[in-house]
Amino acid sequence: MYFTTYEYNKAEDIGVFLKETKEIISIKGIFQHMDRECPESMNEFIEMSDADLIKDMERVIKDNNFEGIPESDVKLCAPIPYPKRNIICLGKNYIDHAKETQGLPGGTEDIPKFPIYFSKIASPAIGDGDIILNHSEITDMVDYEVELAVVIGKDGINIKKEEAEDYIFGYTIINDVSARNIQRKHGQWFKGKSLESHCPMGPYIVHKSKIPFPVELEIMSKVNGEVRQNSNTKNLIFDIPYIISDLSKGMKLKVGDIIITGTPAGVGLGFKPFKFLKPGDIVECYIEGIGSLTNKFEE
Amino acid sequence: MYFTTYEYNKAEDIGVFLKETKEIISIKGIFQHMDRECPESMNEFIEMSDADLIKDMERVIKDNNFEGIPESDVKLCAPIPYPKRNIICLGKNYIDHAKETQGLPGGTEDIPKFPIYFSKIASPAIGDGDIILNHSEITDMVDYEVELAVVIGKDGINIKKEEAEDYIFGYTIINDVSARNIQRKHGQWFKGKSLESHCPMGPYIVHKSKIPFPVELEIMSKVNGEVRQNSNTKNLIFDIPYIISDLSKGMKLKVGDIIITGTPAGVGLGFKPFKFLKPGDIVECYIEGIGSLTNKFEE
Repeated sequence: MYFTTYEYNKAEDIGVFLKETKEIISIKGIFQHMDRECPESMNEFIEMSDADLIKDMERVIKDNNFEGIPESDVKLCAPIPYPKRNIICLGKNYIDHAKETQGLPGGTEDIPKFPIYFSKIASPAIGDGDIILNHSEITDMVDYEVELAVVIGKDGINIKKEEAEDYIFGYTIINDVSARNIQRKHGQWFKGKSLESHCPMGPYIVHKSKIPFPVELEIMSKVNGEVRQNSNTKNLIFDIPYIISDLSKGMKLKVGDIIITGTPAGVGLGFKPFKFLKPGDIVECYIEGIGSLTNKFEE
Repeated sequence: MYFTTYEYNKAEDIGVFLKETKEIISIKGIFQHMDRECPESMNEFIEMSDADLIKDMERVIKDNNFEGIPESDVKLCAPIPYPKRNIICLGKNYIDHAKETQGLPGGTEDIPKFPIYFSKIASPAIGDGDIILNHSEITDMVDYEVELAVVIGKDGINIKKEEAEDYIFGYTIINDVSARNIQRKHGQWFKGKSLESHCPMGPYIVHKSKIPFPVELEIMSKVNGEVRQNSNTKNLIFDIPYIISDLSKGMKLKVGDIIITGTPAGVGLGFKPFKFLKPGDIVECYIEGIGSLTNKFEE
């Protein structure tokens, strides 16, 4: 199932996206049929979700003739517009990307022997179609990074690799927009990754039951239609079970946490000369099985 | 005024600590006298707080003969046990500390020209008297760092230095406990700063009206009574107005955010040989005008 937070008639709601008909069904309607209290946000929904709930919802959708809203009539928001904690990010987690940024602003010197973890503020995260602000007073080096985002489905600490999938709710796309000069200036990457509007997320969260594990998905970004990044999540240096197991050593992952797994080669920083975002650029982030997340860079 | 989150008769509450009598008054009682809806958590209280509310509360406390609970009868929690976002931290913000850690694990090479920002998970933060877990399966290099914590009182972006104090709610102490091997291993510092229980906070949040601005307070840590760190917050390389102004460039600070301003020389990493925490060690963090935050390292 595909989950979305959306605006319709100026009200925000959460819903299920039906791929076949390109319609959205409000979760309220589905929950009425299950005689359960309806969650008020995607965070609340993820907290109550287990395999049974997802199956029940699938059954209810199948058995009832819901009147959906055409996707084209709604404004998609980030599926989790207000993540409860900072996004947890991995740096340099594709070999080709680690190589392209060696010695460059925000770059590290080597292919990492251990995962590089940092965090990114995403409150609010922006949705498909929203504008990425240019913050031109403080940066002219804004870059794009398409990343597979893993949404955690239940609390866990010291999670074993072989149990990692149990702790996943689903997957989405995040564009880890980065102000390279600020990322470098402050030594640690947090601030350069956390500017307002620099966390596009979406278009949907795909439930894990729809994505075969291990996760091997085409991942791509385009700027104004030109392919910039093009790889597959099977090329991660540290894969999802490793990340969840390693990150959770001594540190509790919580339901609703979002981990972004790194970006492949082809970011603006990797080109000579650099290809940072220019006013009006259209950035499209695509991951197979999830969809496309498209945003315009402020003019 | 001093604000606290505490447990009494197995229930968690927020209250005001009266320094003179060493008693705690539940905020519920104070709010009843003001005919206002009572906040349910410190986060909610900070959100509704403005200068008028603080003055009203002072008046109500003065005019009424509240029966307080002796401080010795309650369990102090972290004043904000569940910060809404990660703690924002500064690295190397005292010259003497920047020098003592040059070239060492987790150290940077130079005295920073710009603030080093990173984040720390603190959910839950632990309170005065709680145990700092040793996580001995993954680290034997756990270190202490006494830091002045600034609690943000209202949302703001692109805040001017001269208006910085307007955005502050108050101050507390955080021990930025750090697993040095993990801090180094992952390149970026986030994971080594974020182990479970590694964010002692407290004992109180002191309202800004009680701390003259600019903030010049003695800051000290002791391990088993031995003075390890001893400085004054006037020695910050980047002072509080600079930090709030610089951090908020392009990045919204939110009410309830906590910024920790760095630690002076004398951490375990700065000694030869290292003086990391040993099982059963008692760490005391002191800041003038705020109090002492004391925690035991797991045996």
